Amino acid sequence: MTSVEREAVSRVTVGSSAGEYPVYVGCGGLDGIAGYLATHAEAHRYAIISDHTVAPLYGQRVMSACMSAGYGAAIYTFPAGEESKTRNSWSILTDELLGDGHGRDTVVIAVGGGVTGDLAGFVAATYLRGIPVVQVPTSYLAMIDASVGGKTGLDVRAGKNLVGAFHSPRCVIADPTVLGTLPESERAQGLVEAFKHGAILDAAYLDTLVADVPDLLAAAPAVAARAVLHSVRLKADVVTRDELEGGYRQILNFGHTLGHAIEAASDYQLGHGAAVAVGMLLETQLGEELGVTEAGTESGLRNALATLGFDASSCGHVDVEKALSYLLSDKKARSGRPRYVLLRRLGETLEGDGWSREVPDDAVRDVLSGLQ
Amino acid sequence: MTSVEREAVSRVTVGSSAGEYPVYVGCGGLDGIAGYLATHAEAHRYAIISDHTVAPLYGQRVMSACMSAGYGAAIYTFPAGEESKTRNSWSILTDELLGDGHGRDTVVIAVGGGVTGDLAGFVAATYLRGIPVVQVPTSYLAMIDASVGGKTGLDVRAGKNLVGAFHSPRCVIADPTVLGTLPESERAQGLVEAFKHGAILDAAYLDTLVADVPDLLAAAPAVAARAVLHSVRLKADVVTRDELEGGYRQILNFGHTLGHAIEAASDYQLGHGAAVAVGMLLETQLGEELGVTEAGTESGLRNALATLGFDASSCGHVDVEKALSYLLSDKKARSGRPRYVLLRRLGETLEGDGWSREVPDDAVRDVLSGLQ
Repeated sequence: MTSVEREAVSRVTVGSSAGEYPVYVGCGGLDGIAGYLATHAEAHRYAIISDHTVAPLYGQRVMSACMSAGYGAAIYTFPAGEESKTRNSWSILTDELLGDGHGRDTVVIAVGGGVTGDLAGFVAATYLRGIPVVQVPTSYLAMIDASVGGKTGLDVRAGKNLVGAFHSPRCVIADPTVLGTLPESERAQGLVEAFKHGAILDAAYLDTLVADVPDLLAAAPAVAARAVLHSVRLKADVVTRDELEGGYRQILNFGHTLGHAIEAASDYQLGHGAAVAVGMLLETQLGEELGVTEAGTESGLRNALATLGFDASSCGHVDVEKALSYLLSDKKARSGRPRYVLLRRLGETLEGDGWSREVPDDAVRDVLSGLQ
Repeated sequence: MTSVEREAVSRVTVGSSAGEYPVYVGCGGLDGIAGYLATHAEAHRYAIISDHTVAPLYGQRVMSACMSAGYGAAIYTFPAGEESKTRNSWSILTDELLGDGHGRDTVVIAVGGGVTGDLAGFVAATYLRGIPVVQVPTSYLAMIDASVGGKTGLDVRAGKNLVGAFHSPRCVIADPTVLGTLPESERAQGLVEAFKHGAILDAAYLDTLVADVPDLLAAAPAVAARAVLHSVRLKADVVTRDELEGGYRQILNFGHTLGHAIEAASDYQLGHGAAVAVGMLLETQLGEELGVTEAGTESGLRNALATLGFDASSCGHVDVEKALSYLLSDKKARSGRPRYVLLRRLGETLEGDGWSREVPDDAVRDVLSGLQ
């Protein structure tokens, strides 16, 4: 990769209470990592955290880049998969870093998908009361969604991401050339979050995504880079306006109230992307039935998601009672009642009380029952 | 307690990146808790966290105050003692809160000493990625030191407070009338931190403390309130200037580099206050031997601490090699080297590179060896 080609890397700035941080999006970004570290996260040593699948592919590459730039670096790995996003993995990783004597002058580099970003981010958030982290997302989901906004978290018995912290990265390096090694099913699931960005904020973007689906699923680098960049810009704008999810940021939960409930009701056998796709369809139907979402919005969204291979049947059989009981424990609940982000139309979210609202239980039961 | 008497409660404002918060210091403050909650931390429900010793004394009292003011409240307890400041206690408490369906509209109230503040603070810092906490310190150590500055933390195998987070409270309520139930040995240990504030910042305060020692050890409310208030003001000023311990805040680590090493070398059999008292004496001696601390400073500090019952023999036998090996893993280390806060004279700290400095290993070995 020459420096001319690397000029294709774009920089998006995200605001946070701890200061701004840049997200670099573009093909070849990973080759420039030593420079980004020198600029944004110079450290005595780097602790690279990656899973057993990604470490041999990209973790080692990041470590080599650090070392050839003269930095100390060590790699810490854990078994791939959501099963690793636990307090136990967090304990093991923090103990390993402590055992190796990492001090406050160490920076964590998270290299991997959403699980790695969440787990390594929580390690960094809590190690010695917080050390810096650089995020190197390697999946669509992590590039499009997880790497922007500073959320970190662990899954516990009661549900996913129920412990964690907001911990903004020093910088994010999203290089779509790495998406070629991602399994195709994960590509489709990750792209659901991009479709969500279109649905809540930008109808023209949703149209572009639909047109680009074949290239996106094939991880064609230039097309993937364009989508990642657009989603990062949209999300960065939301997160900058509302870092801690007090109000406007809630729009990013579109599709997630019912999506999480469906995912939980499946005992997490269902993929996150598929669950959110169905959640978006149901929440749009809910809005139409409540008369606040323009008629035809759900069918437009349904046509869009179908190009990715998702429809209302994507979640298989749903245990409605189990999903409803999960809703009452949803962490976005206020005063024990679940809240919903609803669309006005494709590309536009309804501003309610804090950008989300309660809806009658019967209406929720109706749309969930329609899945049977 | 009448409202006239309650006017004796003083308010100190602490700055933090998440906004300012007040520390209320004064006799009768606890009686006004419902009002402070309404003003600073109104919530759907309160989760009161306290240990088995303090819960029956003050946890229940806080819960009653919440409930008679019409708030929902529940109490969560754990076994008293430093042994509870673990990942395991944190897991149990977060699972209990999740089991009871606490949402983002719950506020944690930490009622107890330093362990409770650290543990409950870390629960709040990480529960659903962070919910508010109100600190109700019930020991000298917690009032004087732990409740100001937003530090939370857990002990792990490698040492104390090595995982944690900065999480500023919504408010702190320090009511010295509760100190009467604190064991006298803990009173002396906690007061060491007040002596530290005098040593690094305010020689006249150190003189006042020495004169007040009998009343302070007896927990005479008005005298205790005056000392707590002065220490809180001094510490609040430091923390406001440097929340995240990047520079000036390091002066609060005076006595702690060697104090932690001595504590660790004793396998934590030694009390924190005693270890810090000896650490302050040794670090002052170190400064004198390096020619940067005025001659006579150590003897002045020694005379002051003697009134509390501490001297160089307070730590008993110290395994010097074990203490030295601990120093190399000290979390304040930069580039693997321990750093020391040194005095110019009593009441004045030397400004070095970031208010702390490296010193030759031989000099450290010399002062530690003097303990034998």
